[in-house]
Amino acid sequence: MKAVIVGGVATGPKVAARLRRLKPDADITIVEQGNVISYGACGIPLYLGSLVPELEELTLTASGQKRDVAFFQGQKDVRVLTNTRAISIDRAAKTVSVRHLLSGEEDTLPYDYLVLATGSRPYVPPLPGAGLSKVFTLHDPDDAEQLKRTVKEEKIRHVTVIGAGLIGIEIADVLAGPRLKVTVCESQNHVLPRLLDPDMAKLLERQMKHRGVDVRLGCKVKALEGDDTGAVGQVLTDQGQIETELVVFAVGVRPAIELAQAAGLTIGETGAIRVNESLQTEDPCIYAGGDCAEQTHVMTGKPVYIPLASTANKQGRIIANNIAGKNEVFPGVAGTSVLQAFDFNIGRTGLSEAEACDLGYKVITGVASGLDAAHFYPMHSSIVLKLIADETSGRLLGAQVCGLGDGIKRLDILVTALKFGTTLVDIGNLDLGYAPPFATPLDVVVHGANALENKRLGLVRGLSAFELQESLRTGEEVLLLDVRKEDEVESNPLAGPQVLHIPLGQLRKRWQEVPAFRRIVTVCEMGIRAYEAACILRGKGLAQVAYLEGGIAVWSAYQEEEQRS
Amino acid sequence: MKAVIVGGVATGPKVAARLRRLKPDADITIVEQGNVISYGACGIPLYLGSLVPELEELTLTASGQKRDVAFFQGQKDVRVLTNTRAISIDRAAKTVSVRHLLSGEEDTLPYDYLVLATGSRPYVPPLPGAGLSKVFTLHDPDDAEQLKRTVKEEKIRHVTVIGAGLIGIEIADVLAGPRLKVTVCESQNHVLPRLLDPDMAKLLERQMKHRGVDVRLGCKVKALEGDDTGAVGQVLTDQGQIETELVVFAVGVRPAIELAQAAGLTIGETGAIRVNESLQTEDPCIYAGGDCAEQTHVMTGKPVYIPLASTANKQGRIIANNIAGKNEVFPGVAGTSVLQAFDFNIGRTGLSEAEACDLGYKVITGVASGLDAAHFYPMHSSIVLKLIADETSGRLLGAQVCGLGDGIKRLDILVTALKFGTTLVDIGNLDLGYAPPFATPLDVVVHGANALENKRLGLVRGLSAFELQESLRTGEEVLLLDVRKEDEVESNPLAGPQVLHIPLGQLRKRWQEVPAFRRIVTVCEMGIRAYEAACILRGKGLAQVAYLEGGIAVWSAYQEEEQRS
Repeated sequence: MKAVIVGGVATGPKVAARLRRLKPDADITIVEQGNVISYGACGIPLYLGSLVPELEELTLTASGQKRDVAFFQGQKDVRVLTNTRAISIDRAAKTVSVRHLLSGEEDTLPYDYLVLATGSRPYVPPLPGAGLSKVFTLHDPDDAEQLKRTVKEEKIRHVTVIGAGLIGIEIADVLAGPRLKVTVCESQNHVLPRLLDPDMAKLLERQMKHRGVDVRLGCKVKALEGDDTGAVGQVLTDQGQIETELVVFAVGVRPAIELAQAAGLTIGETGAIRVNESLQTEDPCIYAGGDCAEQTHVMTGKPVYIPLASTANKQGRIIANNIAGKNEVFPGVAGTSVLQAFDFNIGRTGLSEAEACDLGYKVITGVASGLDAAHFYPMHSSIVLKLIADETSGRLLGAQVCGLGDGIKRLDILVTALKFGTTLVDIGNLDLGYAPPFATPLDVVVHGANALENKRLGLVRGLSAFELQESLRTGEEVLLLDVRKEDEVESNPLAGPQVLHIPLGQLRKRWQEVPAFRRIVTVCEMGIRAYEAACILRGKGLAQVAYLEGGIAVWSAYQEEEQRS
Repeated sequence: MKAVIVGGVATGPKVAARLRRLKPDADITIVEQGNVISYGACGIPLYLGSLVPELEELTLTASGQKRDVAFFQGQKDVRVLTNTRAISIDRAAKTVSVRHLLSGEEDTLPYDYLVLATGSRPYVPPLPGAGLSKVFTLHDPDDAEQLKRTVKEEKIRHVTVIGAGLIGIEIADVLAGPRLKVTVCESQNHVLPRLLDPDMAKLLERQMKHRGVDVRLGCKVKALEGDDTGAVGQVLTDQGQIETELVVFAVGVRPAIELAQAAGLTIGETGAIRVNESLQTEDPCIYAGGDCAEQTHVMTGKPVYIPLASTANKQGRIIANNIAGKNEVFPGVAGTSVLQAFDFNIGRTGLSEAEACDLGYKVITGVASGLDAAHFYPMHSSIVLKLIADETSGRLLGAQVCGLGDGIKRLDILVTALKFGTTLVDIGNLDLGYAPPFATPLDVVVHGANALENKRLGLVRGLSAFELQESLRTGEEVLLLDVRKEDEVESNPLAGPQVLHIPLGQLRKRWQEVPAFRRIVTVCEMGIRAYEAACILRGKGLAQVAYLEGGIAVWSAYQEEEQRS
C-alpha cells in the first residue's frame, strides 16, 4: 500500500509515524516544499524571545533526536522529499505530480491514499507598503530567524505589530522591553478578539499597558510608508500615523488549499478543505488534516477553522488509523485556545458569550476571581474565570480564563466537562484534587460554577465589571458600596462618583447607613465579600443590590481606562 | 428557624455561612469543643515544616480576616460557642445538651435542624508505650504546635513516623533533613497504600530514600519503649527495633460518631455516620457531613470513608441548601486524593487496580511517562501516569500520578472524565489547551489514553516495570533491548542479566541481531521509543516483544531496589 503525504510539519509526520506502526509494509512518502520538517511551530515565538536559544531545538524529539530526513528514513522507514512541491493531483490515475525545487525536475508519485497536510500561510493584507523589506510575518523558522536577526543587527527600537490575535500578542510579549518599544494595532475593539470576550480581554490589555506596550484598538491600518532601504517609517491608520521602524503582520493565517482546489475537492465555507468526520475529503482516497482542513465545533456541529498543533497531531493519528482500516472518527474541536503572554495564562474553550447569543441560547455569564493554591501556601496567584451558561438549563457553554495563576488547568477541567454537556451543578460537585499547593478547598472552578448557579436561580444579583462600566457611562445613579477592610481601602481606594465604605464586618450593624439608590453595587477585592454583602442587604430588604463579579481584581482594569480617558 | 451545628472546623462553618446567605432570619448556632474554629487543617503539615510561618494564617480568610468567634458573630450573624461540647441529642424534643468546658455548666439548645459536623480523631493503636509523652499525632493546630516545639527545643535528631499514608508522608517530608533523620514504618508493603498502587508507590519510595528517609515496609510496630522522661528510646517491630527519640502516629483517623451513635443514628459499615444522598441521617431533621460521615463512591455506588476538606466544604453547602428547602443531592466522591511531598505531585482518582479487579472488571492498565510542558520550553518536569480501564469497554476506571511535574492538572481532567463514564478514545480526543508552557501537543493524558487503547486493541504489548520485575524474579529468560542513544546508555547504563543495546535509529537495519528469546522487552527513557521499537520488531514477525511502559523513568525505582537487595 502506497501512502503519499503532502506536508511535513505536524499532521504529515504524525500520519507517517502512526501509519508505519500500524502497517509495517506500507510504502510511505512525505512531500515537503520547505527545507525542514516536523518542527514545533508553537515554539517559534519562544525562539524570537530567546526562551528557546536555538531554532534546532524545535526539531528535536523529547529525547534529543533530530527529526530530519535521515531520522524519518532510518527510524520510521518513511521516505521524505524536502524542497519538493506537490503541484497537482490526478485523482483518476491516483498520482501526485511533484517538482523538486532545487533541480526543477518533476516526478509523478502514485498513491493508494493521499493525505493533504499542506498547512497554512500567514495572511498579509494587500496594503500599500506591505512589500517593504522590514515588513515581516512569523510563521516558520525562517521568518523567526530573519526577524530576530533584523531586530538585533539593525538595533530596531520600535516595532509595530498589526493584529492582536494569539500570535500578535505572543510577538508583542517577547519583543517588548526597555530597549524596544512595541505598538500593537488591532482593528477590533479589544485584544484577542477571536479568543476572549471584551471583558476578559480588558485584563490582558491592562497588563500589556503596564508592560509599556502601546495598544491601539479599533485601529485600522491603511498603509505603510517607508524609505528606499525598505525600513518602515510610518504606519498610517484611521487613528493617525505611528512612527515605527519595523512591522510584523499577525492578522491570522489562511489554509493552503490550492492543491486541493485544483483537484476539484470541496473547500468549505470557512475557506479550508472540507472533510467528513473520518477526515476524508469527498474523494475516499484523499484525507486532509491540520491547518489546511476545517473542523467541526462540538458545541454547534458547524464547521470552524481553528488551526492548532494539538488538533493537527490528533488528526494525524486518526487519518493513519483510517488508512489502516480502523474506521475512527475525529469528534471535532471545542474551540479551545490557550497562550501565555505578559505573565498571564490566557485561554478559552467552548462558545464565547457572543457566539452563544448568536446561537439563540438564553445566555447567563459570571466572572469569578480566585487563587490557584491555598492563600496560606507560599506561592499562589490569582485567576479570573468567566463562565458562559444556558440560563434555562444551567448547562455550561463556554469558559475563559486570564491571570497570573494557573488558569489553564481549570480550563482543561472545563474542556472535559463541556464534552459531556455538563451543568453548573455538576461542576460544583466535581471531586477535584485538593491540597494546599494545588487549589483552594473549593477550587475557583467550583466556586465560579456555584456563583453562577446562584445568579441563575436568582439568589443574588451579580454585575460584571463590563456592565458596571456601561451603567456608569450611561449616567445611571449607582452607589458603589466598598466592603473591604480599612487598610485595603487606604492602599487602593475605589474611584467612582458615589462610593460608600462600610467594612463587611460592620455591615450588619451599619446597613441602615446605605442610602436609597436605584442601583447599589457591593465591591471587594475578589468578589467574595461583596457577594456576602449583597446577601446581607437583600436580607434586609434592599432588592436593588448587586455585587461586582470578580471584584477590584477585574474592575481596576476598567478604572484605569476611565482615569486615562 | 433554628439550626444547631455541632463542629466548627470545615463543614460546620460552611453550613452556617451558606445558610445565613440563604436564610437571613435563621437562628444559627455553632457548637465547637475546641478553642479555635474554621481553620485550614490541610495546612497544618505546612506549619510543621515552616512553609506557613504562623498557625494563625490557617484561620484567616483569603482577604486576611480572622475567622474567629467575633467574625462569625459580626459578619455572618452566627452564634459560636467554643469550648463547648455537645453531649447528647434528644431527637423527640429536638434539643441538644451542651457542656461549657471552661465553666462546667450545661445548657439545652432547641433546634429545627441539627447538623453533625463532629469531624474525626487520629487513631492511636493501643500498643505498649503509646502513652509516652514524646508520642504525637498531627491532627489539629495544638498537635502541630506541640510537635514543632518539642522537635526544636529538645533538639530531636531522630523521628519515627508510624504509617505511610497521606499524613505520614507529609510529616516525613517536612521533618526529614540533614539534622533530623526520619524513619517511616508502614505495615503494608508499599507507601501510600490507600492512595497508590504498588507500582506507582515505588516511585515515591525511591524519592523518599534519595532524600535520606529510612523507609520500612511490611513493618508492624509492636511496642514503644521509653525512659522516665517520656522520651521514646526504641520502636519495637516485627523487623527488629528502631532507635528513635520521638514517634508520630499517622495511621489514619476515625470518625467522631459517639454523639450520633448515642442518639440512635445509624453508623454505616465504614464506621462513619450513614447519610442519604441529601446528606440526611435517618432523622430527617439531622444532617451529617465532613469527616464524621460516610460518602458514596460514584464508581461503585458503595459507601466509603474518605475524609477530605474539599468534600467537607461541598457537603456543607449542600446541607445548607437542603435546610433552606432547595432539595439538592451530593453525588458522592470519586476517590480523589492528592498531595505534594518530597517534591513530587502525587494523586489518584477513581478505582485502584485492585479495587477494579475486586469489582469484577476485566482490568487493563497502562503506565505512561511524559512532560508537563513542551520539552523545548525552559521549564518542564516529568509525570508518570497510570491509567486503569475496563478491557472490555475501554472505559476509564481510575488514574494515578506521581512525579515532579504537574500531574494534578492531569488528574483533575481525569476526575472530570470519570464522572461521565468516559472511554480511552474519548480522552484521546479531548480538545485540551496546548501551548508550549502548558503541555506537549499530545498531552500525557492523551498519550497515556492512546497507549492504553493500543494495548487494549492488541496493537502492541506493554509490560509494566512491576511485571518486568516479577518476570525477572521468577527467573524467566528476558532480553532487555535498550534502544536509547549511545550517550544515554553511557551515562545511565541499564542493569540486568541480558541486555542488548541497539539505538532505535539503527534497529531497522540491525533487527536481525536480536536473538530469539522467549520474552524481549524494549526499553528507553520514557517508553515512547521502546514502544516504537516493539512495533518495528513485531513488524518483522517477532510477536514475543513487549515494551517497558513508562521507561527507565519508572524502571530505575525497581533497579535500585534490586541493587540494594
